[in-house]
Amino acid sequence: MTYELPLVLTFSASDPTAGAGMQADLLTVSAMGAHALTVLTGMTAQNTSGVSRFEPCSADWVQAQVDCLMLDAPRIRAIKAGVLGSVDNLRVLVNVVNQCAQAPLVLDPVMASGRGDALGMPVVFDTMKAELFPHVTLLTPNWPEAKALTGKRTAPSAAKYLLDLGCKAVLIKGEHVKSDNVVNRLYLASGETFDFPCERLPGQYHGSGCTLASACAAALAQGMDLADAVELALGFTWSSLQRALKVGKGQLIPDRMHLMHEMSQLMNMEGIAP
Amino acid sequence: MTYELPLVLTFSASDPTAGAGMQADLLTVSAMGAHALTVLTGMTAQNTSGVSRFEPCSADWVQAQVDCLMLDAPRIRAIKAGVLGSVDNLRVLVNVVNQCAQAPLVLDPVMASGRGDALGMPVVFDTMKAELFPHVTLLTPNWPEAKALTGKRTAPSAAKYLLDLGCKAVLIKGEHVKSDNVVNRLYLASGETFDFPCERLPGQYHGSGCTLASACAAALAQGMDLADAVELALGFTWSSLQRALKVGKGQLIPDRMHLMHEMSQLMNMEGIAP
Repeated sequence: MTYELPLVLTFSASDPTAGAGMQADLLTVSAMGAHALTVLTGMTAQNTSGVSRFEPCSADWVQAQVDCLMLDAPRIRAIKAGVLGSVDNLRVLVNVVNQCAQAPLVLDPVMASGRGDALGMPVVFDTMKAELFPHVTLLTPNWPEAKALTGKRTAPSAAKYLLDLGCKAVLIKGEHVKSDNVVNRLYLASGETFDFPCERLPGQYHGSGCTLASACAAALAQGMDLADAVELALGFTWSSLQRALKVGKGQLIPDRMHLMHEMSQLMNMEGIAP
Repeated sequence: MTYELPLVLTFSASDPTAGAGMQADLLTVSAMGAHALTVLTGMTAQNTSGVSRFEPCSADWVQAQVDCLMLDAPRIRAIKAGVLGSVDNLRVLVNVVNQCAQAPLVLDPVMASGRGDALGMPVVFDTMKAELFPHVTLLTPNWPEAKALTGKRTAPSAAKYLLDLGCKAVLIKGEHVKSDNVVNRLYLASGETFDFPCERLPGQYHGSGCTLASACAAALAQGMDLADAVELALGFTWSSLQRALKVGKGQLIPDRMHLMHEMSQLMNMEGIAP
């Protein structure tokens, strides 16, 4: 007997810590009950304290991966894109999105790693706004990214600007940060907004943005509507941060297997398993 | 509160189908309760029917990833290596193994993908035998690989040859294939052998060797002894094949999240979850 899972096509760079990037996408999509087809867009050398080296893949290589996957006729249910690395790589993605017009696109407009290391050139973001935003189902900037992309000084005006460029919805992460709460607000093209407050967690995390965007894509791939997908993805991400892993001396890494680990812990505590 | 998991350092190439390679290592290690630090050794463009392109990473890039991870002082509990791609990449691994002398090394001597596409040059295997085998805790060739590596015509003589080169143990996969059983035999340097028969499954799978070797590394990282680790890893791999995923038109992909998927299926059947 064989099984099928909804397929999520991801575009992201490799992170050897498995905290962020392609590794985060793969673990998150799998833990959310879908299967990821992972197009590599770049390589990094990094650890939990910073990125020491970044190199985008050539557009030729990105195209070769896509062509080979598409020949197999997979039924792509959602697309998630993070770091693209070059304008040419971005254009490969635009073509894919046109080929899979029924698949929602979640775009995490990563400008820098969580530690501030630059992972893209300004020209990539200019082209992104003009050529990719009209295809975006859900854009997931944090508030500094939303400011940088729009030049606006308030979140509602930044969201309006991004929606006017063609994004169907914008989730601004960390729009307000109060003492013990972070408010994430989803703006829809219809004018509706949804607030998702999360308890603020201590510590610094590496890969939370990739986890959230991939979790949104996995939920959309399973047919959820946008606000439900975002709510589920935020819950998944918060839980993965709440039991984050210490791997090195720097930032903590979200535990995307948190459900499995909690279950096995519970079983041990209750004496069901050895 | 933060958590630690045993760390497994992996060396492998990217497979965009997420069936084999680094993606298989990452999913398997995570599903087995450890965390993988994933050093990329090469890129492929492939689908479930074959590899269309392969390019090793430069040794400079492999070294950069390793250096950056090691600066973070992670406590590496096991190392797993698959496709290395070049003699220079192999030598980066030899240095790492010397630095982490307490960590068991599981080496899957992949000569070709499951479909027969070449993924390494003969010179890599000659250097591997001379420089890497003396550090290997567990070598996991299938029978055709064992034959090609040794030139021997029987599995026991091939195993003896590989143990004499310094491997502490050799698991020859598919040493005997009977109508409905596959026998995998573990040979230890002590002369002891252990047989692990598995029920033969119909279908062709993409990534079973990577899954098995990574599962062995994850079990060893958790302190299991060799024969127990191999038994657990074979069970994990068999279950992941038994409910393999159909992603494209070609080979099936092992479901490394099979435990999670079985549990959620059970819960649905019993009406616990919606």
